Amino acid sequence: MADATKSTLGKGLEGVELCETRIAEVDGKAGRLTIEGYDIQQLSGKVSFEEEAYLLLHGKLPNKAEYAQLLGEMSENRRLPAVTLSVLEQVSKSAHGMHALRMAAATLSEGDPTIDDISIEASRKRAARLLVQMPLIVATFWRLRNGQSVPEVSPTAGIAESFLHILKGEKPHPGQVKALEAYLITVSEHGMNASTFTGRCVISTDSDMVSALTAAICALKGPKHGGVPGPVLEMMESIGEPARADSWIREHLAAGKKIMGFGHRIYKVRDPRAEVLSEASLELINSGSGDRKLFDLTHAVEDTTVKVLSEVKPGRDLYANVELYAALILHSIGIPSEVFTPVFAIGRTAGWTAHMVEQLQDNRLIRPSSVYVGPRNLQWTPISERK
Amino acid sequence: MADATKSTLGKGLEGVELCETRIAEVDGKAGRLTIEGYDIQQLSGKVSFEEEAYLLLHGKLPNKAEYAQLLGEMSENRRLPAVTLSVLEQVSKSAHGMHALRMAAATLSEGDPTIDDISIEASRKRAARLLVQMPLIVATFWRLRNGQSVPEVSPTAGIAESFLHILKGEKPHPGQVKALEAYLITVSEHGMNASTFTGRCVISTDSDMVSALTAAICALKGPKHGGVPGPVLEMMESIGEPARADSWIREHLAAGKKIMGFGHRIYKVRDPRAEVLSEASLELINSGSGDRKLFDLTHAVEDTTVKVLSEVKPGRDLYANVELYAALILHSIGIPSEVFTPVFAIGRTAGWTAHMVEQLQDNRLIRPSSVYVGPRNLQWTPISERK
Repeated sequence: MADATKSTLGKGLEGVELCETRIAEVDGKAGRLTIEGYDIQQLSGKVSFEEEAYLLLHGKLPNKAEYAQLLGEMSENRRLPAVTLSVLEQVSKSAHGMHALRMAAATLSEGDPTIDDISIEASRKRAARLLVQMPLIVATFWRLRNGQSVPEVSPTAGIAESFLHILKGEKPHPGQVKALEAYLITVSEHGMNASTFTGRCVISTDSDMVSALTAAICALKGPKHGGVPGPVLEMMESIGEPARADSWIREHLAAGKKIMGFGHRIYKVRDPRAEVLSEASLELINSGSGDRKLFDLTHAVEDTTVKVLSEVKPGRDLYANVELYAALILHSIGIPSEVFTPVFAIGRTAGWTAHMVEQLQDNRLIRPSSVYVGPRNLQWTPISERK
Repeated sequence: MADATKSTLGKGLEGVELCETRIAEVDGKAGRLTIEGYDIQQLSGKVSFEEEAYLLLHGKLPNKAEYAQLLGEMSENRRLPAVTLSVLEQVSKSAHGMHALRMAAATLSEGDPTIDDISIEASRKRAARLLVQMPLIVATFWRLRNGQSVPEVSPTAGIAESFLHILKGEKPHPGQVKALEAYLITVSEHGMNASTFTGRCVISTDSDMVSALTAAICALKGPKHGGVPGPVLEMMESIGEPARADSWIREHLAAGKKIMGFGHRIYKVRDPRAEVLSEASLELINSGSGDRKLFDLTHAVEDTTVKVLSEVKPGRDLYANVELYAALILHSIGIPSEVFTPVFAIGRTAGWTAHMVEQLQDNRLIRPSSVYVGPRNLQWTPISERK
């Protein structure tokens, strides 16, 4: 074990390979994201979010019969347990989005009499249920936070459509539904990231999927997790227009500040998800919705930042990441920035649950060790003698 | 990285060293558990659970002034948020203990305006709050599950005393309070186990302590986690009396079944916690409470099992683990087996929160990698063409 110790201690398990996986490959040098054998460009904008979730859970795109069965199961489960609604009613005004999502998701075992059945078949069915309940939680949270009623939505509407319908209180523009599906697919899965790994740790104890989902949400909540575009939108608002990009970025870099939406621990080229989301944003504009001004500003900021960074920090390989264009597409769809991270969680639930199923297929308790560097043989003294 | 890969892939990170720690050392060969420099025998039965929690959080036993301040802070926080009580009222009859504990703990951010402050000082204060709220949740759950009212308890009573007072609905026998403190200290910390590691993963994203605590509970819930003595008690009831131990164990082993309460992934000798809990159980009997019959049966079962295992499985090093005597002491105190795991969580919260503080002191995102073994370059086809 000496070599493993030397190379891993204190590095957050970077480079330690947990397991083999058939779910996704992130190729940071080539700028390529493969999901179940498909490049992300082969999925985003081409299949529905439900089809892609099926692909993640079953390892193949569904045929007509399989898809009809999935949609049927999802439709039956499009409701929240009473306690989940009660929690949202009580905390929506006081709690921020990810705190509320953790509390609500933690209750999703209620009304599930076989919750502790973690067989593969039961887990896939449960994943389909959780995939429709997560957007219900987020949209309901937002309505209640703003003192608005929660509209009834057709049980046959897709996940993206029904989410937007509840969130906005009206039937959404079809272009927005398509753009949201592209976003959800694009962020659905990205290999062994911190939240996915946390979910796998929990299910590795033979706990249950609601516990593992809750834990994944707890990890996603942390600012270091990444993938969350709130700060990018604030930056765009601060820059304001393409003509100001160059001076704004140079001043920001000169002050030692980070430019949001650039750089990634794995990608050393442009994040492939940036292009997919840029295309989806353009399609939304062409459909008669979207935000042309923000689209132009985002591209100007990207071009300028890459140019300035290559001058100021040559060789650092800082390119646009998913956050830059996620801010564009989510804002263009009309999703409030306060729920950007919860909406990310809706998409990532597809990847999380797929990893839980994969972990259960060849399960082994996940538990590293640590090296004790403290004292030994201390003798207890009564409190009156302690300093 | 080649060596690390070869040695870790698919092994649940066994043997991979995450970090240095000053919290605990589990010496499996010597049968020794060191907590913050003290052998477990130096702490259990000698200090209060609150003192030991302070030791874990601060790295030293408190002096009089520090202890008074801790007890003051704990006393102020001895209440649950309204939403936590509401969740318990709604789910106590339908949900099993660990599901209910996950749901309730997930809401403990409510009423905490600085929940996202993860500075070391704020984290230690928050840990003291969570340490008094966890037993409140478990005792309240049990009262509501049985349709009983939740009694008011003196705010100056200690954690163990107030827990037993609420759970039983009457002031507990002082010997029971002392025995429960010995149990809580004995299970409070055991190095980088699965739930502790999960909590560290969550806080490593700069998430918050309630999220990390919730995730740790989610991992503890899994049957593979270990440390939980429910099945041992069932076994004792099945054996019934010392004279039946030999034949029961031989029959059980001959049928290929596992004897509960024996063997451990780390300890290759008797678990040091077994002795500590045996002594505490004897002290409880001597105080005029306790369960002499179960005490004698447990010792007979241990002696017989070790003897029979050394005959039947020579060289396997299967000795008594913490579960064997945890069942004895918890049952002797009058704690129902349905809440054995939640009561374990009350004690382990001290270790969990200490590990969160240690992780935050030198934080780095925890995230291993995986090896993709699936296909590449698949081409999307329309649903009508799929098989």
